[in-house]
Amino acid sequence: MSPLRIDPIAEARRHWTERWGEEPARPMAAVTSIMRAQQVLMARLNELLRPLGLTFPRYEALMLLSFTRAGALPLGKIGERLQVHRTSITKTIDGLEHSGLVRRVPHESDRRAVLAEILPAGRTVAESATEALNEAGFATEPLSAAELSSVGSVLRTLRLGAGYFPG
Amino acid sequence: MSPLRIDPIAEARRHWTERWGEEPARPMAAVTSIMRAQQVLMARLNELLRPLGLTFPRYEALMLLSFTRAGALPLGKIGERLQVHRTSITKTIDGLEHSGLVRRVPHESDRRAVLAEILPAGRTVAESATEALNEAGFATEPLSAAELSSVGSVLRTLRLGAGYFPG
Repeated sequence: MSPLRIDPIAEARRHWTERWGEEPARPMAAVTSIMRAQQVLMARLNELLRPLGLTFPRYEALMLLSFTRAGALPLGKIGERLQVHRTSITKTIDGLEHSGLVRRVPHESDRRAVLAEILPAGRTVAESATEALNEAGFATEPLSAAELSSVGSVLRTLRLGAGYFPG
Repeated sequence: MSPLRIDPIAEARRHWTERWGEEPARPMAAVTSIMRAQQVLMARLNELLRPLGLTFPRYEALMLLSFTRAGALPLGKIGERLQVHRTSITKTIDGLEHSGLVRRVPHESDRRAVLAEILPAGRTVAESATEALNEAGFATEPLSAAELSSVGSVLRTLRLGAGYFPG
């Protein structure tokens, strides 16, 4: 990708300020920045994970499972933790199951709930993927440690206030 | 959505630091925060725009067109400005065309290029959508003006360095 010659968000902000004032221009620019940063990061991360047959959302679900004691979680709980709708989680787990990295198992006591359980192949792939992502600094170049901490801390307020989609 | 009782990113960070150290834990936490914030914002924005028959990506494309002198841009140029792949832009413009908000027109001089042109109905809807989003502070509650500026400024470095997907 070639670097951008102009900054489209600065352009949008100029239009906004002219027509609607500084007040709504600020959140517009911040939201648009988050959208663009997410797209850039997602494309880079998926590129890093492609050789392992993973996407970033699938990687995230695998890691979540790998950190639990039983290596398994109800699908609803995965959705809560990753703050995504049930339909997205279903799709993610479908993909992982299709690749032989997790399997669905019935819940011991709640007959309506289904668990996703990480398989040994899932742990192996998650390990290799983590090595690749750690090595690449999670594709955050050229951000500094201070910049990463600052973004994380501001967005924490937004994330925690927003809560989760009930599974 | 109920607020999260625990912070899943703080949990992940603890696991990361234990196994791989502080260095890769920092970018992991920042990237994951950006992913979660984007999901939260996208869900809220789509909710605000649903009564108008829009999604946020379609709204962004409409606004981009509305700011041009001719009310039209080649699809490749829209992709550059919004930093998304050609296939995503095609889908977004398909949706807008289907809703009667834009139309595709041939490029005057470049026979391989196609322009998207905003229609009067598109301008009307974009105007109402902007009022709704401005009113709602682009769904950024509870972030302060200083926090919004700080996020925007850090992510600018990432966005501009990443460049665009050639259309």
